[in-house]
Amino acid sequence: MFKIPDHQVAGHQASTGIIGPLIDDSGRFYKPLQSDHRGSQEVEFYTKFSSITEIPNHIRKFFPIYYGTKQIEASDGSGPCPHLVMEDVVSIRTNPSLMDIKMGSRTWFPTASEDYIMKCLKKDRETTTLPLGFRISGFQIYGDKDSGYWKPERKYVLGFSTDDVRVALKKFVSSNSSNDLVAEPDCAFAESVYGGPNGVLAQLLKLKTWFENQTIFHFYSCSVLMVYEKEPALKGHSPGVTVKLIDFAHVIEGEGVIDHNFLGGLCSLIKFISDILDNLPHNSAQNSEN
Amino acid sequence: MFKIPDHQVAGHQASTGIIGPLIDDSGRFYKPLQSDHRGSQEVEFYTKFSSITEIPNHIRKFFPIYYGTKQIEASDGSGPCPHLVMEDVVSIRTNPSLMDIKMGSRTWFPTASEDYIMKCLKKDRETTTLPLGFRISGFQIYGDKDSGYWKPERKYVLGFSTDDVRVALKKFVSSNSSNDLVAEPDCAFAESVYGGPNGVLAQLLKLKTWFENQTIFHFYSCSVLMVYEKEPALKGHSPGVTVKLIDFAHVIEGEGVIDHNFLGGLCSLIKFISDILDNLPHNSAQNSEN
Repeated sequence: MFKIPDHQVAGHQASTGIIGPLIDDSGRFYKPLQSDHRGSQEVEFYTKFSSITEIPNHIRKFFPIYYGTKQIEASDGSGPCPHLVMEDVVSIRTNPSLMDIKMGSRTWFPTASEDYIMKCLKKDRETTTLPLGFRISGFQIYGDKDSGYWKPERKYVLGFSTDDVRVALKKFVSSNSSNDLVAEPDCAFAESVYGGPNGVLAQLLKLKTWFENQTIFHFYSCSVLMVYEKEPALKGHSPGVTVKLIDFAHVIEGEGVIDHNFLGGLCSLIKFISDILDNLPHNSAQNSEN
Repeated sequence: MFKIPDHQVAGHQASTGIIGPLIDDSGRFYKPLQSDHRGSQEVEFYTKFSSITEIPNHIRKFFPIYYGTKQIEASDGSGPCPHLVMEDVVSIRTNPSLMDIKMGSRTWFPTASEDYIMKCLKKDRETTTLPLGFRISGFQIYGDKDSGYWKPERKYVLGFSTDDVRVALKKFVSSNSSNDLVAEPDCAFAESVYGGPNGVLAQLLKLKTWFENQTIFHFYSCSVLMVYEKEPALKGHSPGVTVKLIDFAHVIEGEGVIDHNFLGGLCSLIKFISDILDNLPHNSAQNSEN
């Protein structure tokens, strides 16, 4: 009944002797509760989030539906252990292209331990987290039946420079996404995935408006997950663009202050995506810097 | 001809044996070039800024007018030394109330020395820089002829908590700004200073729109300076609200990326100011969190 998901691009992944998430065939995703405080913090977040009635529905849908916790056999066969149960936003899709973007120019929260802060700060400085306010944690881009997915190693992705990020965001919506960053991406799907009233940009702008005002939560080390399907787009149908926030093990209370760390990174990501849309061949007249 | 300015609330201030800025009686402000790279970096910024014709006028007016550099006798009598010459935005005012707010949740830039980074990080964590995305560096609030100014010590201001910042931003626009944070501020001038089409909030929102798009400069350790005059406001006249960006010794090139660090802090400050306006007695119906 439970199996290891095919399409995970970041986070702890199940393999021999390593515990990881599972899925079932009814569209639910089971994330093992991490044994330290992180598991309980994520449960706490989902519980609190579910209970806050003022969060509008158009924002609520950026979060996976939460079904509580459940004791199931761990992926590594080590026995039953508690799992978060939530909506599976990926496995229900056919050949999904995915990108996981960890938000914020700081992945550590002020009350964390000194060791944790220094570890995060080091990683933030070594990746694009510090200069860009976000870093790509992982992605997979579907090519076609023959080429399958381009799903680079975690280490390769974390080594991305600013220019690599720019190219990867173009490759993500291109038909010539060969397995490297070299070929000039054609951005064939940019308009249908990033653009339009339900595209990534429109969705990120909705999130931005909420983050300019919400002071309930601060989302440290949280990711924006972008998903779409290439094949329907090739046939002129909707690519089924989905934007979700995931990973809430480091969410803390906002205490009346906006999450300027997430928001700053979100505005930076929005600018990258807008620049791609503004620089498509037929849009070149719109280019401007100020 | 040159004298030490009366109304400086942050930064290096001239006193016996300490070099500091000077003003003349024609409305110019002379800032001694700091002997390390900071002085030359600020000159470089003003020079580059002046040369970029794409910066629109409604943004240009947030920056003090720059008149080049000039060799004049230093304030400490140590002989002639080069000074930045710029518009004096404060001394031309009568009994100005001022607040200097250092922007960003990070005051250090990625390429700074390890020592400098650690020094800044420590201060950012000890002040509201980290939690709020900005810190109040200094202020003076004019009371009346008898009480004069409330101008607290630098050290006291840097010790502000989130709640202290909230109260100080209210005190700044109150008629009962006694010399402490205890009395409940009446926010008598909130509407005329923070509100309205030329008020602080409207001006900060204009800046925000620019920062969402501009990728030319990253403004580390730069301040927003707010100035107004209480006496005209008491007579029903305009309080002459001015919002300026100042201190550009740590501005670096944006290299195609927005200044998400400044922008995040700016959005946080905007939320603080909006909250004050939304919670004025006659506006209480407008209160909302999401």
